[in-house]
Amino acid sequence: MSILQIIEFSAVVTSALYGALIAHRKGMDFVGLFSLGFVVAFGGGTLRDLFLDRHPLFWIANGHYPVIVFFLTLAGSVLPGLLTRIEKHLAFPDALGTGLFTIVGTGYALDSGTSWFVASLIGVLTGTFGGVMADVISNELPSMFRPAPLQATCAFTGSWCYILGMQLPASEIWALPISILVVVLMRLAALKWNLQLPSANREHGGGGL
Amino acid sequence: MSILQIIEFSAVVTSALYGALIAHRKGMDFVGLFSLGFVVAFGGGTLRDLFLDRHPLFWIANGHYPVIVFFLTLAGSVLPGLLTRIEKHLAFPDALGTGLFTIVGTGYALDSGTSWFVASLIGVLTGTFGGVMADVISNELPSMFRPAPLQATCAFTGSWCYILGMQLPASEIWALPISILVVVLMRLAALKWNLQLPSANREHGGGGL
Amino acid sequence: MSILQIIEFSAVVTSALYGALIAHRKGMDFVGLFSLGFVVAFGGGTLRDLFLDRHPLFWIANGHYPVIVFFLTLAGSVLPGLLTRIEKHLAFPDALGTGLFTIVGTGYALDSGTSWFVASLIGVLTGTFGGVMADVISNELPSMFRPAPLQATCAFTGSWCYILGMQLPASEIWALPISILVVVLMRLAALKWNLQLPSANREHGGGGL
Repeated sequence: MSILQIIEFSAVVTSALYGALIAHRKGMDFVGLFSLGFVVAFGGGTLRDLFLDRHPLFWIANGHYPVIVFFLTLAGSVLPGLLTRIEKHLAFPDALGTGLFTIVGTGYALDSGTSWFVASLIGVLTGTFGGVMADVISNELPSMFRPAPLQATCAFTGSWCYILGMQLPASEIWALPISILVVVLMRLAALKWNLQLPSANREHGGGGL
Repeated sequence: MSILQIIEFSAVVTSALYGALIAHRKGMDFVGLFSLGFVVAFGGGTLRDLFLDRHPLFWIANGHYPVIVFFLTLAGSVLPGLLTRIEKHLAFPDALGTGLFTIVGTGYALDSGTSWFVASLIGVLTGTFGGVMADVISNELPSMFRPAPLQATCAFTGSWCYILGMQLPASEIWALPISILVVVLMRLAALKWNLQLPSANREHGGGGL
Repeated sequence: MSILQIIEFSAVVTSALYGALIAHRKGMDFVGLFSLGFVVAFGGGTLRDLFLDRHPLFWIANGHYPVIVFFLTLAGSVLPGLLTRIEKHLAFPDALGTGLFTIVGTGYALDSGTSWFVASLIGVLTGTFGGVMADVISNELPSMFRPAPLQATCAFTGSWCYILGMQLPASEIWALPISILVVVLMRLAALKWNLQLPSANREHGGGGL
């Protein structure tokens, strides 16, 4: 369980930075930076904990998490040049956060005794919901629902790697890092080569919306 | 309790198709179809279960529900002609889903010992929240809040038919189907004759937004 | 605990009126008025109760709250002149509702044994989430995330007044009203003199969005 917590911590940091970057690009003030950082970092995990009836919620149990998000986004707010410099490197923390949260979420769901399919859904939800919430709050059609590079598909694939991998012997050692790597590599490949699922509009020759 | 579960199953199928249809009309890919199908099918019931502290959530307890939604929306994604053909027949599954979920939600709330009024609200929420969520996610002003044919009003009326009907003798037999019928007929009538509640803009002679 | 409940009741009434006013300005019908009244009145507290695992939710335990919101918004719907007349006086009920809910939320969180920082966040969430939800549902970028007069900052400051005040002797008597007053006065001052946090767009000389 301890290795899951280390991973959770890294995912919180990368996601908070990602949320602050979205808010910064939108010209929001510190409240906006902290709120979006908070939502991206804790939104998916909060839904996971509520759905699985895990209490206290992970950011209430780990009271230092919100404090870290506070000071990270405060630093980003006071030193906007810092965020702008990170801005070019959005892709990797995004992919890493998605991968880490997805596999942790899948693991918690399996621990709660859900079916495999439900565990994979909760994994995908944990990994992608924060970003969807950030888009909904900043009043954009979530990129997950627009024609856009694969995201949920990467999380879903990594989740099943973990679920199936855990059935093999000695899987505690490699199932976790390998599955996260699957999500990260798939996501980075999707961004690089603009891999997308086919969508209805395409068939009519029209563009996305 | 078993009859409630049969009804729940039917409502999941009709709602998933309805969500997939919304996503298809928006030109979304399979992730979008599945997500909106999932949200419309499980959104209202999830909120109901969280509010009433019912665990595990009904789609976690019934692990086959999400699998059914997955394959229904996959079929809709692979055979878009299928969805287009159903598209003309949106009104009835919509009305049926609303009616079924509303009455099931009211029943669960009464079982949990809420007041009658709270039970009716949770019923309306269960019946209409999935659609509202789908609208919020796809970045539209929910039709429930625009001048539009009656929806929540139908659910509210059916919910009270059920609550009051359950006080009469031998009501287990007829209160459930009659109340669902009330919602479905009211909703279909509202769509046919464009029945609406009066709204403020009307008085100023302006249109809706 | 009884004084917290009196405060809760006042906050429900002012918030319901505020939600109904937003809906009325948007030209919504009674379903819209009641829904936004309900969301602004109960949205923040519902999230607080779900996050702290407090069941039954406060509006289920106090079954008369939703009934009051129903009749308040019904009166606003039948007598729109009433709402229009209140409309000019939006600022004070808004500030009062924010202040009351924030301090009540902070108190409940402390009672649940969260850390101080988490308690302040849950306070801010309880005080501001209803308004954010109303904005998201009516498809606007929440004013909390636009360049706009201080809101979350007022709630945050009042919340810390309460947390630190409660460490002093005999604080039960004055910590509650003083902290609420801090939020209300800060919020009214922010509205009067348009106090805002600096935001990124400013530096580029551009306007808000």
